[in-house]
Amino acid sequence: MAKRKIKMGMVGGGKGAFIGGVHRMAANLDGEIELVCGAFSSDPEKSRISGEDLYLKEDRVYASFEEMIEKEKQLPLGERMDFVSIVTPNHMHFAPAMLALENGFHVVCDKPLAFTMDEARALVKKVKETGLIFCLTHNYTGYPMVKEARMLVKNGHLGKIRKVVAAYPQGWLSSLVEAASDNKQAGWRTDPSKAGASGCMGDIGTHAENLAEYITGLKIEALCADLTTFVPGRKLEDDGNVLVKFEGGAKGIIYASQISVGEENNLSINVYGEKGGIEWRQEEPNTLVVKYQDKPKEIWRVGGDKQYLSPEAMRATRIPGGHPEGFIEAFANLYKEVAGAIRDRLENKSYNAENYDFPTVEDGLRGMAFIENLIASSNSDQKWHKFEY
Amino acid sequence: MAKRKIKMGMVGGGKGAFIGGVHRMAANLDGEIELVCGAFSSDPEKSRISGEDLYLKEDRVYASFEEMIEKEKQLPLGERMDFVSIVTPNHMHFAPAMLALENGFHVVCDKPLAFTMDEARALVKKVKETGLIFCLTHNYTGYPMVKEARMLVKNGHLGKIRKVVAAYPQGWLSSLVEAASDNKQAGWRTDPSKAGASGCMGDIGTHAENLAEYITGLKIEALCADLTTFVPGRKLEDDGNVLVKFEGGAKGIIYASQISVGEENNLSINVYGEKGGIEWRQEEPNTLVVKYQDKPKEIWRVGGDKQYLSPEAMRATRIPGGHPEGFIEAFANLYKEVAGAIRDRLENKSYNAENYDFPTVEDGLRGMAFIENLIASSNSDQKWHKFEY
Amino acid sequence: MAKRKIKMGMVGGGKGAFIGGVHRMAANLDGEIELVCGAFSSDPEKSRISGEDLYLKEDRVYASFEEMIEKEKQLPLGERMDFVSIVTPNHMHFAPAMLALENGFHVVCDKPLAFTMDEARALVKKVKETGLIFCLTHNYTGYPMVKEARMLVKNGHLGKIRKVVAAYPQGWLSSLVEAASDNKQAGWRTDPSKAGASGCMGDIGTHAENLAEYITGLKIEALCADLTTFVPGRKLEDDGNVLVKFEGGAKGIIYASQISVGEENNLSINVYGEKGGIEWRQEEPNTLVVKYQDKPKEIWRVGGDKQYLSPEAMRATRIPGGHPEGFIEAFANLYKEVAGAIRDRLENKSYNAENYDFPTVEDGLRGMAFIENLIASSNSDQKWHKFEY
Amino acid sequence: MAKRKIKMGMVGGGKGAFIGGVHRMAANLDGEIELVCGAFSSDPEKSRISGEDLYLKEDRVYASFEEMIEKEKQLPLGERMDFVSIVTPNHMHFAPAMLALENGFHVVCDKPLAFTMDEARALVKKVKETGLIFCLTHNYTGYPMVKEARMLVKNGHLGKIRKVVAAYPQGWLSSLVEAASDNKQAGWRTDPSKAGASGCMGDIGTHAENLAEYITGLKIEALCADLTTFVPGRKLEDDGNVLVKFEGGAKGIIYASQISVGEENNLSINVYGEKGGIEWRQEEPNTLVVKYQDKPKEIWRVGGDKQYLSPEAMRATRIPGGHPEGFIEAFANLYKEVAGAIRDRLENKSYNAENYDFPTVEDGLRGMAFIENLIASSNSDQKWHKFEY
Repeated sequence: MAKRKIKMGMVGGGKGAFIGGVHRMAANLDGEIELVCGAFSSDPEKSRISGEDLYLKEDRVYASFEEMIEKEKQLPLGERMDFVSIVTPNHMHFAPAMLALENGFHVVCDKPLAFTMDEARALVKKVKETGLIFCLTHNYTGYPMVKEARMLVKNGHLGKIRKVVAAYPQGWLSSLVEAASDNKQAGWRTDPSKAGASGCMGDIGTHAENLAEYITGLKIEALCADLTTFVPGRKLEDDGNVLVKFEGGAKGIIYASQISVGEENNLSINVYGEKGGIEWRQEEPNTLVVKYQDKPKEIWRVGGDKQYLSPEAMRATRIPGGHPEGFIEAFANLYKEVAGAIRDRLENKSYNAENYDFPTVEDGLRGMAFIENLIASSNSDQKWHKFEY
Repeated sequence: MAKRKIKMGMVGGGKGAFIGGVHRMAANLDGEIELVCGAFSSDPEKSRISGEDLYLKEDRVYASFEEMIEKEKQLPLGERMDFVSIVTPNHMHFAPAMLALENGFHVVCDKPLAFTMDEARALVKKVKETGLIFCLTHNYTGYPMVKEARMLVKNGHLGKIRKVVAAYPQGWLSSLVEAASDNKQAGWRTDPSKAGASGCMGDIGTHAENLAEYITGLKIEALCADLTTFVPGRKLEDDGNVLVKFEGGAKGIIYASQISVGEENNLSINVYGEKGGIEWRQEEPNTLVVKYQDKPKEIWRVGGDKQYLSPEAMRATRIPGGHPEGFIEAFANLYKEVAGAIRDRLENKSYNAENYDFPTVEDGLRGMAFIENLIASSNSDQKWHKFEY
Repeated sequence: MAKRKIKMGMVGGGKGAFIGGVHRMAANLDGEIELVCGAFSSDPEKSRISGEDLYLKEDRVYASFEEMIEKEKQLPLGERMDFVSIVTPNHMHFAPAMLALENGFHVVCDKPLAFTMDEARALVKKVKETGLIFCLTHNYTGYPMVKEARMLVKNGHLGKIRKVVAAYPQGWLSSLVEAASDNKQAGWRTDPSKAGASGCMGDIGTHAENLAEYITGLKIEALCADLTTFVPGRKLEDDGNVLVKFEGGAKGIIYASQISVGEENNLSINVYGEKGGIEWRQEEPNTLVVKYQDKPKEIWRVGGDKQYLSPEAMRATRIPGGHPEGFIEAFANLYKEVAGAIRDRLENKSYNAENYDFPTVEDGLRGMAFIENLIASSNSDQKWHKFEY
Repeated sequence: MAKRKIKMGMVGGGKGAFIGGVHRMAANLDGEIELVCGAFSSDPEKSRISGEDLYLKEDRVYASFEEMIEKEKQLPLGERMDFVSIVTPNHMHFAPAMLALENGFHVVCDKPLAFTMDEARALVKKVKETGLIFCLTHNYTGYPMVKEARMLVKNGHLGKIRKVVAAYPQGWLSSLVEAASDNKQAGWRTDPSKAGASGCMGDIGTHAENLAEYITGLKIEALCADLTTFVPGRKLEDDGNVLVKFEGGAKGIIYASQISVGEENNLSINVYGEKGGIEWRQEEPNTLVVKYQDKPKEIWRVGGDKQYLSPEAMRATRIPGGHPEGFIEAFANLYKEVAGAIRDRLENKSYNAENYDFPTVEDGLRGMAFIENLIASSNSDQKWHKFEY
């Protein structure tokens, strides 16, 4: 393959959307990916204007994702998009993802994977059949220190894991902000017909669950959930507290909230093993606290010059220590890994999933299952609900 | 009454004990209280040596608490002890406390109140009968910023409370340290015959519960507990995770742990209301973070010069801001309040419990009930266990 | 003008360079700028390979900046580069910058502006003559909270400024790392023939000075410098402490160091006025502490949802609070402003420097003067050296 | 000697004084010292009332320090005071200190040592002549982590020291608060007839100087000072910035301020050596950050259970880690050391100053010299002023 950028088409992410812009910045950052086309809105005129704002050629801005996939497919390889990035609200993930896969396009899809478990399972199946690359953007695993934490568990630095506390409090839904017609974010995220069966836990609780499983390498086996809707008039839960049992005997707590007034995006995790513990906070993501019982805590820091970091963390950092890398850089790490994987495919290199570090369609399915199990548990009088999957 | 210091007798707290020394420093700090006698150990010789180390007169050091109470009672008021401070292991709280009350002495008792609920109820009854002063040292409520937090709830600054997360991780029992014969602390605290039915939750979980109820003014109505013994060979649980329902609809999480490796004494609490939230951490106790949804977080600080603080917090601070007050000062606030209460009694002032800010025998009973309810819940398959009390 | 990206050519920044990569990521981030050509190294083959790695067309990768400027000039507007980004070591800033200006190209130039004051003055003159856009990348002023701090001063929130402490400790030159032949960064930055007359102060001290003047709006009038070379064998100073007098009576301290072992990139500033103070640290750049004498400190936070922020800070933020933005985003703010300025030129909009927020050639001259004055002061026995400019 | 408490008499510290109360709490804390008498005010009636409030016997409350020293001297050893604690404003330190020494009493004296250098020298001479114990309360050296920092320097953990930054910003004199007649603290501290030749630097700058010399073990050889009075109408400087040269080639900055609005009591120090660095902040005194170039920062913590701490730090801590010790505990460490020294004298143990860790009359003289040198430097046009002593 001649050296060229990987070509991206986008579904959703028109003017005013939050997460679409994040995906584009993440894709732009490293100069490996080029946005070449998009169906940015279900409203063709809005899609057209968005495409113009993004400096796309007129004929690569489409009125619908169906049109985009059909027309792009007819372009020669190297000109057409290599993958589709799906950044629509939850209820519109499945259709474009499935159509892209059916037509041979790789996919990056925002979380959650789908609207229902059935959709999620169908996508998993289709990815397996086609062998295409599918990245589900559990973006918090893109942070270097999350990767370092995972390696500290994996290489036994912490000893056998005993306890995990993953917390994700936010405050932005402390009042009925969705009642204001111009708050699109709040609107669809609290609307069961767009967000799905869960509000807070589907939106952010799954990130906490994914983070806990990613770092510890342990699967949740059972859970006991208490979901609550605090704000009168709201249709989906805005707070959830969950006790969990992991395989191998570790215990934990996962909680998420959107009514924790004054909290921004305060995802954090504490993991305690027999020999050591770690603490990480998303809002100051370049620091990993490593704790021991008999010697001082250590402050591990992101940076290309930190020779004590694992190769996995190093690969996810771009600049020397003390030059803070943030949310977009972590998100960009997913795109960088995907771009590398697609490039290897284009160059017919043998493909080994182990070589790439991005969350997959299976992670997406697991997140969907987490939500389903939470709801089942919350509706039950029994303490422990076995995690079905 | 002629101006004089309040006189204290001590039960327990001989050489090498941790909490006895803390009680003495707390009682010393403000110069209001004088240690006049003690039965420092069940071993008369050890008691004698301890008394000598504390500069007591020989004839005021006793071989047993029974002897102390009997002999002190025969001394004239003004010379005899005014109150007894009980700092023995848990299983030896009841007997001296009851005997002191029966003989007309006020009591300060370390936590937990007693070994069994029956004992606890008997003490509550006896305190009511006698009208004597009884302070149960839930010492963390002695911090000025805990008092400030409580006032922020009470005066509506945070709005109606929705969510509470109280956490108390420690790491010192991460391995079977009680196996070492010289670790007296670990020894009795993990021994059911001395500590009682619970390990971690009785020792520190009750502090988290007390803190949550003290600050919010809300009682726990139901809970769902998962208690675990992680360290092989240990006889009592060393970790506990609890979902809670408070009266009025607030929800919460209380967890405590003694296997959270690398944690020191990391008691913390977050409370979220409809309008604002607070965050407090015991290890940096002079700061209270107050959070809002639509304006910057505020860093409230302890200090006699902080005119924005409530009178309740001001009364518990001794020096200007930036001169850190710590654990002993907070503990001393309990003794200062008790000394004030006893002085008022001695001066025959009308006694109104509202005037004093220290935890009472009822708080102690509630802590005992918390433990009992936790164990019942942890042994049950039902999710919610109604808090019985 | 038809909607298109702004086109960038790069001088320097070949394989292995640090700052070149940062400039490219900063230019990429917002999708407004496209790298179209480059002369990445004085070694033509190295330049070619670098261009290939960056997916450039072969005929747009040049062997020298002279060739690039000459050939690009011959391309039609809209195809040729719109501006040059200069990311070479210090001694190679002047020649390409001057040639670019002479040939009608806008310039973004890494700091310091030039190797000598004469060169710097010549560039200022040329920019004035040509009216071209010139951005000198004092990148730390790109952070939203630095802009907010400046606005707090400007709008009188802090009252008249009295005291400023700007500190920039690093530790990476704590030993003679430049002795290792493969440490290119340390090599040229400690070599007077490439870095110029100053080491530490030229490299990072100027950032501290620029930050202090940017935020306070006050110029330094006099200074008293103590520059030291601590590491034996080093040719330029690696540490500097400076007392300063600002216009209007404010006093301050500026210090920088590259032998402050264990420090990463710990630029910070404290500004105190008659009514309030601010504190900002580059390593946690999304927080601005605002301090008052009679009420709690406030924690101001970056975020598109923070309605209490000034429009100036808002314009420099991309995502909601709690999603950390970092070094690259701040750097990208300079490029975003430059791209906007160039676009306005291309669209023949009336140009008002006030509309754009990036450091200019005059800021670069001031930084050069700061270095020259520091050296003069350090060599003098007199306490106060008048800032000549 | 029969086991008894060490007996203290106090000069100054009547009702409403700040530092007198601190001294008493510090002396009380460990139960080693007993307040037996006092001359609490130059107003005999005020002294009487203060003594009553402190539960002293009527005949041990004196109308003047002269009376106290004369009468106490006539009491038998064991009944009379063993030492005098002097907590008056600066201009009244010398007379009681000298009289106490002349009459064979040990002395604890608040800082600064005296009003003039002549007085200071006279006290040093008298202490040498009499061999009496004299403690000057540079209380910040009482913190365990300050002692640990000193030991890290002493045992070579940091390598040869290169740079020191000691800062002490406060904000409480940001306006002319001394104009209010009821602000006694501000009143005398800004009055040259009571505070001495210096305001801010004498009050708090000397603490920073003492801390720097204590930790590094290095003496200041030269300095360059810029002292400023910012608040109109104030008679003494309220801000000072100082460049310093230490013996052996280390450089540093010492600054102090009382107009740094919003700062409480923010004493901090950074020390950088060839191999490592340390950072300590008085407002969170239980943490010492230890920094290295090639491995993670370490968070060293105070606590009786921290076996990695030096014996010197351990001896200054009372409770396990995570139970914060504060300002009063650090102050109490001075009294504990003094009590131990006096007890050894009473028991005729051979006396070796090395065995005790408290600041001496020589430290006090050095602090006085620091102030005098600062003023000379600030009035000079020469950059470097040799530290005369």
